[in-house]
Amino acid sequence: MIPKKHKLLEAHAVVRSFAHRTPVMHSRLLDELAGCKILFKCENFQKMGAFKMRGALNAIENLSNDRKSKGVVTHSSGNFGQAVALAARNLGVNAYIVMPENAPKVKIEAVKGYGGIVTICESTLEAREATSEKIKKETGATFLHPSNDLNVILGNSTATIELLEDHPDVEIVLVPVGGGGLIAGTALAAYYFGKECEVIGGEPFAVDDAYRSLQSGKIETNTTTHTVADGLRTNLGDINFPIIKELVSEIIRVEEEEIIHAMKLIWERLKIIIEPSCAVPFAAVLREKEKFQNKKVGIVLSGGNVDLLNLPF
Amino acid sequence: MIPKKHKLLEAHAVVRSFAHRTPVMHSRLLDELAGCKILFKCENFQKMGAFKMRGALNAIENLSNDRKSKGVVTHSSGNFGQAVALAARNLGVNAYIVMPENAPKVKIEAVKGYGGIVTICESTLEAREATSEKIKKETGATFLHPSNDLNVILGNSTATIELLEDHPDVEIVLVPVGGGGLIAGTALAAYYFGKECEVIGGEPFAVDDAYRSLQSGKIETNTTTHTVADGLRTNLGDINFPIIKELVSEIIRVEEEEIIHAMKLIWERLKIIIEPSCAVPFAAVLREKEKFQNKKVGIVLSGGNVDLLNLPF
Repeated sequence: MIPKKHKLLEAHAVVRSFAHRTPVMHSRLLDELAGCKILFKCENFQKMGAFKMRGALNAIENLSNDRKSKGVVTHSSGNFGQAVALAARNLGVNAYIVMPENAPKVKIEAVKGYGGIVTICESTLEAREATSEKIKKETGATFLHPSNDLNVILGNSTATIELLEDHPDVEIVLVPVGGGGLIAGTALAAYYFGKECEVIGGEPFAVDDAYRSLQSGKIETNTTTHTVADGLRTNLGDINFPIIKELVSEIIRVEEEEIIHAMKLIWERLKIIIEPSCAVPFAAVLREKEKFQNKKVGIVLSGGNVDLLNLPF
Repeated sequence: MIPKKHKLLEAHAVVRSFAHRTPVMHSRLLDELAGCKILFKCENFQKMGAFKMRGALNAIENLSNDRKSKGVVTHSSGNFGQAVALAARNLGVNAYIVMPENAPKVKIEAVKGYGGIVTICESTLEAREATSEKIKKETGATFLHPSNDLNVILGNSTATIELLEDHPDVEIVLVPVGGGGLIAGTALAAYYFGKECEVIGGEPFAVDDAYRSLQSGKIETNTTTHTVADGLRTNLGDINFPIIKELVSEIIRVEEEEIIHAMKLIWERLKIIIEPSCAVPFAAVLREKEKFQNKKVGIVLSGGNVDLLNLPF
């Protein structure tokens, strides 16, 4: 079930060649506030602005040459579409990106700017899937899933591998939990490269499917998607859930106001603008301070593609 | 006139102990756009959010113990007040900060948060100077000037010393020109630590006093202060001007729209929010591309204390 260490090392070699080695930042004032030492791994400064670049690179690079020659396809209204477009361009592969008609124009332009071949469809999941399927049939392109794909997970692991290379004594790493691709990769990295390094997920109460999945032992879904952390509305998948079940300690849930407060603090003190989804782990640390007291804590700031004219604070 | 190299090394040792070694970032897309390789030295991530921390630290540390025991005083509505307050706290010195009554509340709170002893006065230069003078007389505190002070200049030089340590082959460094304290320090660092590294200033057309000062050979003033780059409205001083005259190649002037465009590009591509003043050097590179063609260019992003609800783009 758990992939071997050499798979992570291979992913590390792939990602290292094309992605930024992002900086790790910290703030004495935030440390004082939280009562622990926090190291922020700044994936908001990754190419295209999010950790998803890592998973996309590793997934595409692991295709056979025949597969590569036919391109890749995904549907996305957010960061994964941009990540696939840019990673594919770096690797000389065609990327077909299906985007819903209600996607922000700036995101569609970004995908096009990275060389993605965009198809607009209706904004239902059915239309997105049908359109992707049609392109797959017509072109022979390989479908890439943003989170439930082992090579994506392995690619994502490299953010925490880098963090642990820089700071081998990190005791706990926190990441947000959406589709499960980041936390599964993080858990693998901590397992193989950490010194008894624990992994904890952060999740909004409003979409606490991962929390409930760990309780029940099966993949749960959400009945609503009403959260400011719009990247975390998706459910876990059958490839990442077994890894999460085995290697993740727990999921801490946070309220909407706590997310917004954490996002604002990170702006004020670190001068970093992050997506609300990324603020969830820091909100989790502030909510359960006693758990982290005097520990060395790593937080992956997963992405920074924010509409500045539409900040929640 | 030009301070000796060991003075820069001493400043480097002081600043290194208390300030962040800020990251250097770059973007392939911005390089393509500019036609050169640009390394951004991110002083917006410096403690309190600006390079001014460096000058304040070095100026305070160089006071005698007797002077230190009596504190320091400055007047500021912006970053220097915060820098002096935080640097003084780090060095165990009292900081009296005179702030005009029209200063944004958030800036007054920030100075207080760093332990500064704030006195509010009328928002005229006369009132600010008179109030500082009064505090100086009452307390024996030493007045610190934000830009026309050799130890401030030496402290500021350390940003470029670090940049040249990381990238010794930088051919040109650009910084914005306001009171002249940053560009003078930058020029000293390039002179002693660069390999024939040139220094160029960026300045808004609207407040081009430094440009005109280099033309005329004497310190010129501005008749208006109408620019979005609100940190660059001040004039050069008698301590920094001789250094600038001797060591700075030229000043490139830019239009207001170019500044705003550069600020927006840096947000979109580097995911960094900077003050309009900091966007001026990048605007200068984009304006005079042929001068920088295929060169390795350093830009000091001088500060990031921005009101997100009041962005110019």
